[in-house]
Amino acid sequence: MENRENTEVSRLVGDILSDYQKQRDVDKMVVFNQPDRRAIKAISQKLLRIIFPGYYRDQVYKSYNLEGNLTVLIEDVLYNLSKQIAIVLKYDAVAGKGAPRPCECESLRGVPADEVKIEEQAYCLALTFCHKIPQIREYVDTDLEATFEGDPAAYNKDEIILSYPGLMATTINRLAHELFLLNVPLIPRMMTEFAHSVTGIDIHPGATIGKYFFIDHGTGVVIGSSTIIGEHVKVYQGVTLGALSTSGGQSLYGTKRHPTIEDYVTIYSGASILGGETVIGSHSVVGSNAFITKSIPEGTRVSIKNQELQFKGKDGSIIELSDTAQGEAWYYNI
Amino acid sequence: MENRENTEVSRLVGDILSDYQKQRDVDKMVVFNQPDRRAIKAISQKLLRIIFPGYYRDQVYKSYNLEGNLTVLIEDVLYNLSKQIAIVLKYDAVAGKGAPRPCECESLRGVPADEVKIEEQAYCLALTFCHKIPQIREYVDTDLEATFEGDPAAYNKDEIILSYPGLMATTINRLAHELFLLNVPLIPRMMTEFAHSVTGIDIHPGATIGKYFFIDHGTGVVIGSSTIIGEHVKVYQGVTLGALSTSGGQSLYGTKRHPTIEDYVTIYSGASILGGETVIGSHSVVGSNAFITKSIPEGTRVSIKNQELQFKGKDGSIIELSDTAQGEAWYYNI
Amino acid sequence: MENRENTEVSRLVGDILSDYQKQRDVDKMVVFNQPDRRAIKAISQKLLRIIFPGYYRDQVYKSYNLEGNLTVLIEDVLYNLSKQIAIVLKYDAVAGKGAPRPCECESLRGVPADEVKIEEQAYCLALTFCHKIPQIREYVDTDLEATFEGDPAAYNKDEIILSYPGLMATTINRLAHELFLLNVPLIPRMMTEFAHSVTGIDIHPGATIGKYFFIDHGTGVVIGSSTIIGEHVKVYQGVTLGALSTSGGQSLYGTKRHPTIEDYVTIYSGASILGGETVIGSHSVVGSNAFITKSIPEGTRVSIKNQELQFKGKDGSIIELSDTAQGEAWYYNI
Repeated sequence: MENRENTEVSRLVGDILSDYQKQRDVDKMVVFNQPDRRAIKAISQKLLRIIFPGYYRDQVYKSYNLEGNLTVLIEDVLYNLSKQIAIVLKYDAVAGKGAPRPCECESLRGVPADEVKIEEQAYCLALTFCHKIPQIREYVDTDLEATFEGDPAAYNKDEIILSYPGLMATTINRLAHELFLLNVPLIPRMMTEFAHSVTGIDIHPGATIGKYFFIDHGTGVVIGSSTIIGEHVKVYQGVTLGALSTSGGQSLYGTKRHPTIEDYVTIYSGASILGGETVIGSHSVVGSNAFITKSIPEGTRVSIKNQELQFKGKDGSIIELSDTAQGEAWYYNI
Repeated sequence: MENRENTEVSRLVGDILSDYQKQRDVDKMVVFNQPDRRAIKAISQKLLRIIFPGYYRDQVYKSYNLEGNLTVLIEDVLYNLSKQIAIVLKYDAVAGKGAPRPCECESLRGVPADEVKIEEQAYCLALTFCHKIPQIREYVDTDLEATFEGDPAAYNKDEIILSYPGLMATTINRLAHELFLLNVPLIPRMMTEFAHSVTGIDIHPGATIGKYFFIDHGTGVVIGSSTIIGEHVKVYQGVTLGALSTSGGQSLYGTKRHPTIEDYVTIYSGASILGGETVIGSHSVVGSNAFITKSIPEGTRVSIKNQELQFKGKDGSIIELSDTAQGEAWYYNI
Repeated sequence: MENRENTEVSRLVGDILSDYQKQRDVDKMVVFNQPDRRAIKAISQKLLRIIFPGYYRDQVYKSYNLEGNLTVLIEDVLYNLSKQIAIVLKYDAVAGKGAPRPCECESLRGVPADEVKIEEQAYCLALTFCHKIPQIREYVDTDLEATFEGDPAAYNKDEIILSYPGLMATTINRLAHELFLLNVPLIPRMMTEFAHSVTGIDIHPGATIGKYFFIDHGTGVVIGSSTIIGEHVKVYQGVTLGALSTSGGQSLYGTKRHPTIEDYVTIYSGASILGGETVIGSHSVVGSNAFITKSIPEGTRVSIKNQELQFKGKDGSIIELSDTAQGEAWYYNI
């Protein structure tokens, strides 16, 4: 059977190799190496350990010497992130939407753009990014506070850090968003898709999110790339902050297509808020399953008017259940 | 470049170390080691292998000697689970909501609480938990039966064990719920969040679930901490069994905020049933997307009255499609 | 404590071993080895690397020699997939719904069925499957094109391959569907459940999907086993293409219970389309959250009539917001 198998495998390999020669996008070969999904995942996990020291533990590094431990982690992140950024920058010069970005790093300031090596630029971008960590941690601490206050089922804040998907997705977004602001291509989206895969929460790295953000349960949440969210905003599972139209296709790239949510807004499960000009005024409450495509002034409570339910008894006849019919609580009471 | 990099990394590490000194919750350092997410995941996976012998195979242990194999698995679970429980018990004495729990284990009965070492208590809790396994398997076997009967697409029961997320999430809940009943903090929630991450099904370990439970597809299902579910209950994707209000915040901890679902109830996709006093009577059917905040008597079929759809033709004019408009089947026919 | 522990563990192991003897489905032991979830996952990941050369990189194999690299990958897939198929074929002869499948492979054509060894049959099925790869890649390239045109937030096609869950779930479905058509039991469903776990998108391997398919965001999408989807179809998060009834249980196995979606149809988030006789005519648009159980002619735009929303001001009084109430855009504008 061996010989037959060899022939068959050779034929199969030949067929697929020919197929690779068709020069479609799906055939794109390694002119430059592509960024590595596993490397991005590993970097994301190390960043979580830096953000939450002691919580996302490592089996190997002991935390007896916090400084030594942190130094190792930071050097690891800087090394690997620089490497991935260099890959996408080289890559982007050929395949991307823009020219290589001008370097915004201190140590390269004043150096003419065409004299900067991509590796140095990548290192500077990674370093600039890492300097944002204290500020990101300041925001994440407020998310932790908001989650604890917002969920009566939380045992303590440690439980939230160790097991709440909303905090994880928000933290990864805050990290990825900083890389997004530095115009690093591909990697921020790969980071948030790592979080999406783990949590079911799909936040585009372009979304801007204020302090004290709380997502409960979270599966099915979609937050689009140009969404702007204020402070003390609370979002439940299945909420979409989306676009009204995609019929322009790629011509819409970079436009404001997603809503603005002002401070102290609560959005209950399954609600959809769509459109780049839609503004939900501060202190508003959007009830479950409401579908909003225009702006709402400050302090409004939006709910679906009583959903008309029909109740049938065992024999199929319609019964009146005035006492049990649900009341106005289309949004949860608040 | 080396020297510059060293200086830059030192400065960065210094900045983050200073940030760690701010004594916020997010800065909490290792007074005690925290429970380990990967250890909890590994324990959960080994428990699945004990529940389903032969299905969740191990590449290394052969199953030729079932007793030897099981002994190794059980000792592994006992050792690692005891270790994690000891960590959270020490931890909880400082950070938790309650005092360390009185030990409920046979071998420590009668020993004064202040003479019991935390490690012994942890071991006893792990042992007590493991003794629940046969009872848990009895329940899981009924879930398997209900899934096979409930899903015409199932090829055989083996396919369900090997690939149905609902059975996995339910099994992990049944396991975590027993630890929850033993008052073990943090770990039960970490176990169910592991299942949530894999399946998109978010069941709090506090939820009480009767025999013959079937979740189909399951992504987006949320079942809150004080939910009580009877036997032969069927739940589809996107169903929420939730709370009406969280405005009391942490003052609501431990109260009954989630509904009671009696025996033989079917809840179709996207329906929400909310509130601690809401009881869905036995043999009721809740149609897709219905939003229920009050009780329903036994044997009721709840459906949204025909959703009013609007049909437009190619020229934008409204067309009548009486023949094709959907009928009463707001719930699936049953 | 050692001796006590030994006694206790022995007793526990004894209890669980007794429980295993109850001959329920959950007790099924290794008469034949079961297919291995991790092996199926590894095979799926290698197939993704074959489909997208250069994107799903391997840390070890360098792509300098594409032919050598591909040969290693293909041999690996053939070897491991054959092994898993042989397991399920042996298994199926005892536990499955049908008799062992007649071999459809070229090299075994003409050999009487009872003279074919299961291992040879398994190898032939794996080989036949691998020969479908160029055709699958042709389809996947159209999905990539449709995704890029359909999502203005996409930076470039590389970003889509590296981070869009919809393309991943669709690709795994296209692969699993070919194995499904070859009547290989269990494995196709294990492959799509691997994708479901990663993406929140639950597509049964039985579903038939035309070219240029685009799923955006995707969490919560459910596509049932007998669904037929045409070309240029676009689906958003939370869409269900499901069955109307499961009350027949296993007697419905293999029947057409899921809808047919014709070419150029767009289905917005949260919509449900149910039933085996339901046909959505080509160029139709189904708006968000619409619930459809009957057929719709070609070119129809279906939307929920304006959802009646209620707006309340800060003092609880109802306010009129004619200017801000949402208009007809129950479906996104297209």
